[in-house]
Amino acid sequence: MTTSTYTVTGMTCGHCVSAVRQEVARLPGVHEVAVDLASGSVKVTSDAPVPEPRVRAAVEEAGYELAGQAG
Amino acid sequence: MTTSTYTVTGMTCGHCVSAVRQEVARLPGVHEVAVDLASGSVKVTSDAPVPEPRVRAAVEEAGYELAGQAG
Repeated sequence: MTTSTYTVTGMTCGHCVSAVRQEVARLPGVHEVAVDLASGSVKVTSDAPVPEPRVRAAVEEAGYELAGQAG
Repeated sequence: MTTSTYTVTGMTCGHCVSAVRQEVARLPGVHEVAVDLASGSVKVTSDAPVPEPRVRAAVEEAGYELAGQAG
């Protein structure tokens, strides 16, 4: 199991958090997605590392922007 | 047909707008709900005037606050 943390910009409310969580949780191999609205941090726990472009695509699908990978 | 305009606070994004619109649109006799995110204005078009407490309850059900009636 591996964990990566990203920073997402543009989320302003709980609905935004849900939208991001749902899209990222759909990615194959993802077990858990923890989103913090205040900091924009999105922590993804998955079987194997998820390629960053896939996470980015999911975030954009939800209507937000991936600012970068924090760790 | 009658139109009343209210001011709602707390909406920050398009999801908030949808949540308010959906709840207010459910009120009996309501035909159209136009929400402006920037100003917080919610324009309700209905058969007959909708009692303000009902509109307030719908807005609160959506998770926001009715600041007042504008006209």
